Amino acid sequence: MPPINVAIIGSGFMGAAHVDALRRVPGVRVIAIASADRRRAVEIAGQFDIPNVFDDWHALLDRADVHAVHNCTPNNLHYDVNRGLIEAGKHVLSEKPLTMTSEESADLVRLARARGVVTAINFNYRGYPLVQQAHGMVHRGELGSLFLVHGHYLQDWLLLDTDYNWRLESAVSGASRAVADIGSHWCDLVQFVTGRRITRVFAHLFRAHERRKKPRQAVETYKGKEVVAPQEYDEVSIDTEDGAFVLAELEGGLRASLTVSQVSAGRKNRQWIEIDGSRSAIAWNQEEPNQLWVGHRDKPNELLIKDPALLDANAREYAHYPGGHPEGYPDGPRNLFRNLYRYIADAQRPGHDPADFPTFEDGHAEVVIVEAVLRSHEQQAWVDVGTH
Amino acid sequence: MPPINVAIIGSGFMGAAHVDALRRVPGVRVIAIASADRRRAVEIAGQFDIPNVFDDWHALLDRADVHAVHNCTPNNLHYDVNRGLIEAGKHVLSEKPLTMTSEESADLVRLARARGVVTAINFNYRGYPLVQQAHGMVHRGELGSLFLVHGHYLQDWLLLDTDYNWRLESAVSGASRAVADIGSHWCDLVQFVTGRRITRVFAHLFRAHERRKKPRQAVETYKGKEVVAPQEYDEVSIDTEDGAFVLAELEGGLRASLTVSQVSAGRKNRQWIEIDGSRSAIAWNQEEPNQLWVGHRDKPNELLIKDPALLDANAREYAHYPGGHPEGYPDGPRNLFRNLYRYIADAQRPGHDPADFPTFEDGHAEVVIVEAVLRSHEQQAWVDVGTH
Amino acid sequence: MPPINVAIIGSGFMGAAHVDALRRVPGVRVIAIASADRRRAVEIAGQFDIPNVFDDWHALLDRADVHAVHNCTPNNLHYDVNRGLIEAGKHVLSEKPLTMTSEESADLVRLARARGVVTAINFNYRGYPLVQQAHGMVHRGELGSLFLVHGHYLQDWLLLDTDYNWRLESAVSGASRAVADIGSHWCDLVQFVTGRRITRVFAHLFRAHERRKKPRQAVETYKGKEVVAPQEYDEVSIDTEDGAFVLAELEGGLRASLTVSQVSAGRKNRQWIEIDGSRSAIAWNQEEPNQLWVGHRDKPNELLIKDPALLDANAREYAHYPGGHPEGYPDGPRNLFRNLYRYIADAQRPGHDPADFPTFEDGHAEVVIVEAVLRSHEQQAWVDVGTH
Amino acid sequence: MPPINVAIIGSGFMGAAHVDALRRVPGVRVIAIASADRRRAVEIAGQFDIPNVFDDWHALLDRADVHAVHNCTPNNLHYDVNRGLIEAGKHVLSEKPLTMTSEESADLVRLARARGVVTAINFNYRGYPLVQQAHGMVHRGELGSLFLVHGHYLQDWLLLDTDYNWRLESAVSGASRAVADIGSHWCDLVQFVTGRRITRVFAHLFRAHERRKKPRQAVETYKGKEVVAPQEYDEVSIDTEDGAFVLAELEGGLRASLTVSQVSAGRKNRQWIEIDGSRSAIAWNQEEPNQLWVGHRDKPNELLIKDPALLDANAREYAHYPGGHPEGYPDGPRNLFRNLYRYIADAQRPGHDPADFPTFEDGHAEVVIVEAVLRSHEQQAWVDVGTH
Repeated sequence: MPPINVAIIGSGFMGAAHVDALRRVPGVRVIAIASADRRRAVEIAGQFDIPNVFDDWHALLDRADVHAVHNCTPNNLHYDVNRGLIEAGKHVLSEKPLTMTSEESADLVRLARARGVVTAINFNYRGYPLVQQAHGMVHRGELGSLFLVHGHYLQDWLLLDTDYNWRLESAVSGASRAVADIGSHWCDLVQFVTGRRITRVFAHLFRAHERRKKPRQAVETYKGKEVVAPQEYDEVSIDTEDGAFVLAELEGGLRASLTVSQVSAGRKNRQWIEIDGSRSAIAWNQEEPNQLWVGHRDKPNELLIKDPALLDANAREYAHYPGGHPEGYPDGPRNLFRNLYRYIADAQRPGHDPADFPTFEDGHAEVVIVEAVLRSHEQQAWVDVGTH
Repeated sequence: MPPINVAIIGSGFMGAAHVDALRRVPGVRVIAIASADRRRAVEIAGQFDIPNVFDDWHALLDRADVHAVHNCTPNNLHYDVNRGLIEAGKHVLSEKPLTMTSEESADLVRLARARGVVTAINFNYRGYPLVQQAHGMVHRGELGSLFLVHGHYLQDWLLLDTDYNWRLESAVSGASRAVADIGSHWCDLVQFVTGRRITRVFAHLFRAHERRKKPRQAVETYKGKEVVAPQEYDEVSIDTEDGAFVLAELEGGLRASLTVSQVSAGRKNRQWIEIDGSRSAIAWNQEEPNQLWVGHRDKPNELLIKDPALLDANAREYAHYPGGHPEGYPDGPRNLFRNLYRYIADAQRPGHDPADFPTFEDGHAEVVIVEAVLRSHEQQAWVDVGTH
Repeated sequence: MPPINVAIIGSGFMGAAHVDALRRVPGVRVIAIASADRRRAVEIAGQFDIPNVFDDWHALLDRADVHAVHNCTPNNLHYDVNRGLIEAGKHVLSEKPLTMTSEESADLVRLARARGVVTAINFNYRGYPLVQQAHGMVHRGELGSLFLVHGHYLQDWLLLDTDYNWRLESAVSGASRAVADIGSHWCDLVQFVTGRRITRVFAHLFRAHERRKKPRQAVETYKGKEVVAPQEYDEVSIDTEDGAFVLAELEGGLRASLTVSQVSAGRKNRQWIEIDGSRSAIAWNQEEPNQLWVGHRDKPNELLIKDPALLDANAREYAHYPGGHPEGYPDGPRNLFRNLYRYIADAQRPGHDPADFPTFEDGHAEVVIVEAVLRSHEQQAWVDVGTH
Repeated sequence: MPPINVAIIGSGFMGAAHVDALRRVPGVRVIAIASADRRRAVEIAGQFDIPNVFDDWHALLDRADVHAVHNCTPNNLHYDVNRGLIEAGKHVLSEKPLTMTSEESADLVRLARARGVVTAINFNYRGYPLVQQAHGMVHRGELGSLFLVHGHYLQDWLLLDTDYNWRLESAVSGASRAVADIGSHWCDLVQFVTGRRITRVFAHLFRAHERRKKPRQAVETYKGKEVVAPQEYDEVSIDTEDGAFVLAELEGGLRASLTVSQVSAGRKNRQWIEIDGSRSAIAWNQEEPNQLWVGHRDKPNELLIKDPALLDANAREYAHYPGGHPEGYPDGPRNLFRNLYRYIADAQRPGHDPADFPTFEDGHAEVVIVEAVLRSHEQQAWVDVGTH
């Protein structure tokens, strides 16, 4: 079978990460990269044998040999790019958030259904073997009935008022920052693992820094910390949250509590989740992703290691190396992309064949949740999530 | 100097634990134990050289040789006993909660001030060396300005609907259970470590079991799990919470989030707290009490071990053994009782000399917070704690 | 039943620790303390209601009201004191090592048997609940047949050449230091948990510092680190080891490997032991004593918490608080002393009734092992331990 | 610059893992795979766009368009294949062990030098960022002078006597198993991190199972555990070790102790190493590779996270994702292969330009050490490693 040809839009940190993951997916060939930063795009193309480089992503739309496109642009471009690709009949994998508003995300869902293209969104943490195992455990009833869900998602890369990045600017990044950027991953994980939708939220957002120092020259996401050169700054007002407490209710009356923060010193990317059921409980920490804690009342607690020999049949597919050989962050997207392209290669049909990867429906659901979180904070009241 | 003579009221798990701790406190002699369970009281007295046993705690009131009394009765007796002891001029250490209502707790505070006796309440977790160290770090500014506080207090001893105990009965135990029993410890720790009062709360309480099976014969607290004999049960309705999510605001606008649960399988007594500041963060877990995690942005995180050589001068006083020699739960009350009796021995005066142990003022503060939590849950709104 | 009267010889760190533990043992009264440091002895006596203080331990020999004595003197006095006490018909609990030579220790064993007194040695780590549980698991065959044992005992209190203490002087402390002081605990634990004697050893000892700086004024054990005052020093040669690698064979051909060090920065008292069997494995770390790791091949590993509800009937006796309420270093001796005095109170007879605490036989076994270690190091060869 | 063309010999677990890593290396194109298992080779080639498949690796020798070859054959073929490739002027990356004997490995080193090809051996664990950081810390003197090294390498995949694999057969795998397969990694890490060669060893090897059950149909390495189908067996004698205790001396008198086992239940691939110096200590565990423990005497211990912002300039090159984004086992070879092909692309010359990857010299050193370990075990004596 001939490979599926894929193009990437964006040459930043995420664009390069997608190339890295795609190179490991069987049956896929990356044939183009489109980026306004031509120098960087040419560099990536040269390193990884990518035959085409474009300055403008629109150039991809007419290329019949491009079957699928990864949208790794900044948030404020997501809608236009995703829409353009769908209309051109391309399968699309979008970075999150799917769009800036739920009107837009609902529009994309409708459009993709009408056009029949396969869509995916990069809720990459679903790609960890033990997240899949957790999903299986809940669905097989190993936890019993679920009592509560709780956890946090903590980072420190915006701790200081001298930390700056385009994600701090709501015009580019959206009205919510900490919740939309990282809280959304946690909510998606909870919904995926429990199989239940969040239906109501109560939120309290906060800002550690009302004003930040914006350097007069650009700084790349996440790499900012490494650069310690003295710089010139402008003081700017910040209108998005540094963190939030979110209480939620899920289908079936399940309650959840989430703490989100991008200003927690020493926490680099600590996404931690605990699900407590009537028979047992599970807890998982993204920073130590190769073990799942399983809590019991009447026998010793367990540490389930990412060992193919100990995982269920589905989760085993996400583990490529034996027990004790840790797999990490880059292996998650690799797994989801594999699922996506297997689905495409098998000519499976959205709406008809169930997807084993997050889709634009999931992306839309997150946009709707984030909007409810913002409304709740304004109203200081519980707010229904709705579906819009 | 002659020893201070102490009496204990109560011969249950807590009564025995107090005797255990008091035997390790210099300058103190346990001279009486009062309990309705005479058999058990005689047993404890025999084991630990306690010369007097009484069936009725009132017998202590006229004994001039009893200088201080530990009130280890069930919650619904706390007020009467504490009041009686104060009126008799005894120094009092009460188990928590201080009383069933804030009217009562306010009354005790007033009365104790008027009578001039020394009061203490057993917020025992303050007695850990690393809790003291955390307090010192915050107060020396090592964390910078505080951004957020979060954590949880999780247990599993009430996981099953066959778990039963007097604490499940609001008439004996009070209108709140999980929050009053364990959430109160967490709130006290946060207030102690940060030096700030909780001023507002938003709470969502929940019950895992609306009905439980009450055995027709009594079961002792905490020991219930060990007894697996088949029994006869009555189905009873439960009107107190199995858990709660509590959001809080502290003085100075500091925000906090707490998850409380007594139905989290595998969690035995996991009281975990993280305080995130502008310079660094700290986290502490009661189940691994001999280390304090210290998070940093621009240098490696630290694990501070309970090592007298590494603690500040105050915290070092709470550590009796060298680093690597773990101290545990029983060592906390021992430290607080030492502080209490040193205060008494030195003839320090409440209201004049600062206490290095929690007092009835702290006990009152907790009762007020718990009442606000209940009100907030009813109103589904933020509620001011007030002072009543 | 009247209490058993106990006397303590020694008022240093260990003497005070014994008083602390004895105060928690039912049916025991500490009635005397003997110490050359009269000031300190009087202080302890005053704090804990001890009616008699002696400058010279010989004064205890004629006191008919002293039933048992704890020998907390420096190592070089152990033999004489233990011998004197046995001859006077006292029950004896000795600090370790039992004596400076195996001739002496063999002599004490013989003498005690002849005299019929009860003897005990403070291998305190046996007193942890999970050590008892490990013992039970091995004996019930839960590990299957044993393949190997390995671990380490690491400290850092002698890391610097400015660290000094009487334990560095072989004339006072004995020909071996790291092995005799801490390696001996590890060997005792292995022998206790497996129920097998060490029969052969191969050892490689080492010194990090050939010379150390001895302060001209005395420094108390373990407390030295806390004192940072500038001092005057003498340079002295060191003739005992800072650490060792010890390979061992136990009965039944079981192999073991131990690393001992008192110069491992950051390791305060890390005694770690793993026992690997054909069915499962266990690992335990003294610095986190409230959990036992249980390793499995074909199912998830387990973390067994010190929870009375999860322990076997014997181990449960060593756990005084519920799961999640950590017990620590001071609770170990308390448990062993309880066993000792229960044995005495029940008029059990050494040689006839099995002891549930380590005895002089165990103390003698350790002295013999340490001598074999020293011989092996000299000969650079495997050496039989023998029994002498 | 045109890409470097690489061929793979072998299509088993390791062959596929090499393809996975090579796809992520810039400037490299995998153009051929040679394997006796044609079906599997064709499958891999199809998935990853590899244009050529050969049944016989000799076919690669005449292909001028093949610049470098990865030798992923079973151990007993290593020598012949490596030799053939060198003689054909190919750059070679060999799986370990380099050869079955030190005569062979010495021969390869000589031959490669004469022929001028670049050689590498897959001591993949050097590719972890924190291993590189550890190397840097030692070399900058952050640990002070080194006192001792200790650790273990534990697995459980050969725990049962029904576990079987070609690695159990000395004719195919070599005279040593546990030491050669996994102990060699540990020795290489110690030598790499400390910059010192092992000069003497004392070893005690052991077998848990003298006989094992060999299934009459073949089982793939590491995958065997997953297959639980009932099978027919032959009982076979085993002549290689299941584990070993190895004591070692390194240059400068540094002492080391290693425990190796492939029969430790619950340990999947636990390679743990601690290096204790006069200023501080470090410990690293391959199963939690994203943190490095740093021990201190006079300040809190540290946990250094794999965070590019916290690593030194060299180690940062091995970290591709921000702090808190775990990297794992597959990322190590990727890093080493990148170094290798950068070296080749830059036309650096072995013997002249220092290699930042392990070479055949390192592979030879390991073969020599393993032979010394076997000799020591036979002689029950310390043995010089020599250089042969």
